Amino acid sequence: MSGNSIGQNFVVTTFGESHGKALGCIIDGCPPGLELNVADMQADLDRRRPGTSRYTTARREADEVSILSGVFEGKTTGTSIGLLIENTDQRSQDYSNIKDLFRPGHADYTYQQKYGLRDYRGGGRSSARETAMRVAAGAVAKKYLKTVHGIEIHGYLSQLGPIFAENIDLTQVEKNAFFFPDKTKIDALDEYMRDLKKSGDSIGAKVSVIATNVPVGLGEPVFDRLDADIAHALMGINAVKGVEIGDGFEVVTQKGSEGRDLMSPKGFESNHAGGVLGGISSGQPILAHMALKPTSSISVPGQSMTAQGEVADVVTKGRHDPCVGIRAVPIAEAMLAIVLMDHLLRHRAQNQDVNSLTPVIGMR
Amino acid sequence: MSGNSIGQNFVVTTFGESHGKALGCIIDGCPPGLELNVADMQADLDRRRPGTSRYTTARREADEVSILSGVFEGKTTGTSIGLLIENTDQRSQDYSNIKDLFRPGHADYTYQQKYGLRDYRGGGRSSARETAMRVAAGAVAKKYLKTVHGIEIHGYLSQLGPIFAENIDLTQVEKNAFFFPDKTKIDALDEYMRDLKKSGDSIGAKVSVIATNVPVGLGEPVFDRLDADIAHALMGINAVKGVEIGDGFEVVTQKGSEGRDLMSPKGFESNHAGGVLGGISSGQPILAHMALKPTSSISVPGQSMTAQGEVADVVTKGRHDPCVGIRAVPIAEAMLAIVLMDHLLRHRAQNQDVNSLTPVIGMR
Amino acid sequence: MSGNSIGQNFVVTTFGESHGKALGCIIDGCPPGLELNVADMQADLDRRRPGTSRYTTARREADEVSILSGVFEGKTTGTSIGLLIENTDQRSQDYSNIKDLFRPGHADYTYQQKYGLRDYRGGGRSSARETAMRVAAGAVAKKYLKTVHGIEIHGYLSQLGPIFAENIDLTQVEKNAFFFPDKTKIDALDEYMRDLKKSGDSIGAKVSVIATNVPVGLGEPVFDRLDADIAHALMGINAVKGVEIGDGFEVVTQKGSEGRDLMSPKGFESNHAGGVLGGISSGQPILAHMALKPTSSISVPGQSMTAQGEVADVVTKGRHDPCVGIRAVPIAEAMLAIVLMDHLLRHRAQNQDVNSLTPVIGMR
Amino acid sequence: MSGNSIGQNFVVTTFGESHGKALGCIIDGCPPGLELNVADMQADLDRRRPGTSRYTTARREADEVSILSGVFEGKTTGTSIGLLIENTDQRSQDYSNIKDLFRPGHADYTYQQKYGLRDYRGGGRSSARETAMRVAAGAVAKKYLKTVHGIEIHGYLSQLGPIFAENIDLTQVEKNAFFFPDKTKIDALDEYMRDLKKSGDSIGAKVSVIATNVPVGLGEPVFDRLDADIAHALMGINAVKGVEIGDGFEVVTQKGSEGRDLMSPKGFESNHAGGVLGGISSGQPILAHMALKPTSSISVPGQSMTAQGEVADVVTKGRHDPCVGIRAVPIAEAMLAIVLMDHLLRHRAQNQDVNSLTPVIGMR
Repeated sequence: MSGNSIGQNFVVTTFGESHGKALGCIIDGCPPGLELNVADMQADLDRRRPGTSRYTTARREADEVSILSGVFEGKTTGTSIGLLIENTDQRSQDYSNIKDLFRPGHADYTYQQKYGLRDYRGGGRSSARETAMRVAAGAVAKKYLKTVHGIEIHGYLSQLGPIFAENIDLTQVEKNAFFFPDKTKIDALDEYMRDLKKSGDSIGAKVSVIATNVPVGLGEPVFDRLDADIAHALMGINAVKGVEIGDGFEVVTQKGSEGRDLMSPKGFESNHAGGVLGGISSGQPILAHMALKPTSSISVPGQSMTAQGEVADVVTKGRHDPCVGIRAVPIAEAMLAIVLMDHLLRHRAQNQDVNSLTPVIGMR
Repeated sequence: MSGNSIGQNFVVTTFGESHGKALGCIIDGCPPGLELNVADMQADLDRRRPGTSRYTTARREADEVSILSGVFEGKTTGTSIGLLIENTDQRSQDYSNIKDLFRPGHADYTYQQKYGLRDYRGGGRSSARETAMRVAAGAVAKKYLKTVHGIEIHGYLSQLGPIFAENIDLTQVEKNAFFFPDKTKIDALDEYMRDLKKSGDSIGAKVSVIATNVPVGLGEPVFDRLDADIAHALMGINAVKGVEIGDGFEVVTQKGSEGRDLMSPKGFESNHAGGVLGGISSGQPILAHMALKPTSSISVPGQSMTAQGEVADVVTKGRHDPCVGIRAVPIAEAMLAIVLMDHLLRHRAQNQDVNSLTPVIGMR
Repeated sequence: MSGNSIGQNFVVTTFGESHGKALGCIIDGCPPGLELNVADMQADLDRRRPGTSRYTTARREADEVSILSGVFEGKTTGTSIGLLIENTDQRSQDYSNIKDLFRPGHADYTYQQKYGLRDYRGGGRSSARETAMRVAAGAVAKKYLKTVHGIEIHGYLSQLGPIFAENIDLTQVEKNAFFFPDKTKIDALDEYMRDLKKSGDSIGAKVSVIATNVPVGLGEPVFDRLDADIAHALMGINAVKGVEIGDGFEVVTQKGSEGRDLMSPKGFESNHAGGVLGGISSGQPILAHMALKPTSSISVPGQSMTAQGEVADVVTKGRHDPCVGIRAVPIAEAMLAIVLMDHLLRHRAQNQDVNSLTPVIGMR
Repeated sequence: MSGNSIGQNFVVTTFGESHGKALGCIIDGCPPGLELNVADMQADLDRRRPGTSRYTTARREADEVSILSGVFEGKTTGTSIGLLIENTDQRSQDYSNIKDLFRPGHADYTYQQKYGLRDYRGGGRSSARETAMRVAAGAVAKKYLKTVHGIEIHGYLSQLGPIFAENIDLTQVEKNAFFFPDKTKIDALDEYMRDLKKSGDSIGAKVSVIATNVPVGLGEPVFDRLDADIAHALMGINAVKGVEIGDGFEVVTQKGSEGRDLMSPKGFESNHAGGVLGGISSGQPILAHMALKPTSSISVPGQSMTAQGEVADVVTKGRHDPCVGIRAVPIAEAMLAIVLMDHLLRHRAQNQDVNSLTPVIGMR
């Protein structure tokens, strides 16, 4: 299988470039009987959509998704689901100047070297625009997980540059333009972003995502552990450079007597592990974090070179996010949903006989 | 494909439990014509092997690997390679007391819940003993990458608890029992570990791995990016809770003008990206880090429960590493080698026509 | 991976129902740099299209394919190729009467049982209309195979009911409405079909497909032999009940001294094997045959039952092929092309080092 | 995934050459809790084993299988199952004379061309000896299918050269050396084989395999239809050149009014389809046939050439089956079992919510 698919039993395959005719995806393996309509996907697409706040790119796309197959009379049929979003706001003219230029921090150079040619318009396939289809597919997974198993998935911006959330209140996340869970810091974020925009620079961020009500038992050791597949899915999002499960890099300085989650018949007494033990979900909330680098498309000049091997100075004008991390929140949710959905189906395949989704000793 | 395989064109599938008869693996897709013998694997197996220093578990296994197929007259034939390591030092009696006990921080509870039964001896399939086969398979990948493409892979312990490497000198790594690259800190490590052992506790660690001479072009966007597959492979190692590529979580507080790697016709001027741009290798060294939690098998008592739902105190006696991170160094190398090997073959499959492994503009 | 994808390095994934909004597919893994436009696909789509002769269904679809991604400035870019065909002639009203009816010989019953619900309009996903996307994807494979390797693929109707081709002349195939290679039997076919149509019945057929100029070495033993994957691809076409490679079922009564293809330094002296030895292409033409059952949609009444478990008589009116085998010719070509393309890429992945596509001893 | 694996949720991966140290396989995805011991496999291994009658090769292997992992206290644990058969009767010296010779009808030439080198001893990986592991893995699938779902799988020799079974009585199959279901023809078979052996020639055969009690709903359209995957599995057995489902090639001359299986509330009234409709099991018995070519290893001389491109006459001495079809019976059963097992798990993954394994209208 080539690189544009993810999953084994719930398989999402995508296509589409930033300035091509359309983006699309095929979901293969969705269980039949799930009520599904475009509204289920549109909400998350709108959350990811550029142009929704003054801190994300001003590019405006309706991002209206169509369901082309796999749904009949409002329900999934078990056959492959085709989804499509047409690109309406393409503005190819913006990009002709970078045809022969390798923008630093972008994939221009590596795509050119790998394939020998590339669609240079807006980054082509390497543009984060591609993630719109992940969000659409993730919304299908989210709906199934919620409807059938009560699993909920929520993402938030846990840090933007030097500003990090201290009092995490998930009910705040949708109430501000930053998906930020700590309302005491919204003003600081506003000010930071205003200054940043003025300077023409960009900033990194940390995004967290949590899944609650996940049954114990998901994950396929030894290679397709649940945490390994989450790491694959999150590290595969544009600009991500690090992934953590639970305590993440804090474990480096932890002692064994501190970091293990003690248990009692009532359940676990802490969740340092982030809901995964030995690569298998423990029934506790799944907690993952990811680090996103600042976008490289900034108006601060930077040296690069051309395809002809000449020195060139790059100054990016046009519509770009000063912090790509913000819009990555619904993408992280989508990817976690796709991974959990796939593992739910994989677990079922092997373990229908044991009643393994019901904890044997009354724990959750 | 179920969870005991990794890779798509270079596929490694493993079996074996800590106290079963044997560990084994099948390598499918290895190119023909590679000179291969057991010595190629034994060196890395010995580096991973327990009992090689007083700071790793005292369990002693010869860990002698046999090549059962796929090699004829000293060369790989292109058919599947079968490898086997017999378990000689099993001591099953050590483990009967944990039959009904869920050790905190271990996979006992999740395996029991997932499958409805488990091989409780030494953690069964969830034991890190399983990684011996990864090291053997990784050695085959390493040899091919080195022989045919000059790619070299080196791992090291970059941090153990509070002690981290400042002056990284890879030539030091094999000269001490910690795979530590900073010789000025070996005494401190010795002392730290001695105290730790006395206290019956364990400690986390950070392991880094670097691949040099990697051609530009490896990685399959949008899901099977090189960094995503590295994250999958490293997060799938026992006890790993975090993975970073290049600057990793440092990017959260970076500005775009700082973190992008500027280019000139002579090449990149820095390597914040860790050798991966847009999910494709850039020709720079690949640099990845992983965080390993402290082993949960310690002699400090910890509360847990039994399979019957009763409270139980766990005190682990017997042979256990106070820092599992140390022995994880060759495992990390093996996993990176397997990922690079797989991506090399995947890249070839699609891109033989463009001469894409030779940079178009003379860069490396 | 679920069932709507085929291939491992050249992967085709499809969606779409007979009366849905559109059919589509994603091709993942196509090498970059291939010149590609809709005309390359349209020719084969037109050959498969219904309504082109009075012996195929009168349903009229333009079957115009759009390339939505993966092609830039006329060449493939190596990223995933999205293809779309909108359904323009849907006539859903024709099918409301079969909502609760299980038509004998159709997939109505099995889809209902498998998924618990189904899109009953025109057979939904089980309709042969789905194969339009296979033809489009196959055309991409065909073009690559032809352009880069000189491989040509030709199909023909070798038998229709009692009438079989005796003098096979491939230049005749496109000159008649039956894709029949024996011009001496066209009149007989015409007469047979006219009578058949009058009787309201249908008839089975045998379709053959041949690939020439295939290099020696394609096929991945022991399970993904070239012939095994051809069998998978052809048996997966609607209505196919048998597949043969080379002499096929004739070998049952052959002696070893008859059926083996003797060799000389000039090459093979016969091709009983159909171009595959030990699951690997031998450099001789690949020859495969498939048997297609008569369509079950006929106006001769047949007993069946309803979803409510009641007896019902089925009489199919409307637009149906009296011999589905005829239009299966371009589908068989497409599937063979997809299999060869995938195996070409798979072979490359493992065997770039040996110069294995050039026969070592000058044979072809 | 390379070619030595089969299945997606129940995955069997094999290794081993005819004269290597051992054959082995890994079964990944077997449900936990299945009682399993070597006796479950040994019975079928003995049925396949050479040297059991005077009409199969005189090579004598104990073919004793060991379970190395995945089974604990007599039950499968859900982790990967490692199986091993050591090669005890290797007699490498027999084969040195064919080192540079391409035996006609064998895979010597294609392996040499594909990989650039080959293990020439007894055909190396291309030897049918490899199928022993398929039989072992198939026995695990058989046991699960039988125990949990009551599915039974039986193979038989339906034709040997000109002699075919007319009165099919499955109770006869194990009572003669030919797996032949028609006791009235055993004498004729005996005589035919005696004459054949005298002449130094070999003969083709047809093997049939039937699965009863298969639930409706197995098969994953549109590419991984149940019949397509059966065709893949059977065509992938050494020497097979044709595969049929149900009426197979007879459908070519059938009319639609003859070949469709009419239905009533009591069930289907015939089984022309061989238990598969639209690629999905119908609940009727699955019936498949395969054609096996005569072995090419005969003492009748045949012209070939050497690796140096010189003419050579080939006369095969040593131990070879005059009819490889006979021993293929347990192999066909094993492959059908593996396919059904895999599809059972795949079906479960997607369709746990609909109670689809129970026919909705009381049919079976």
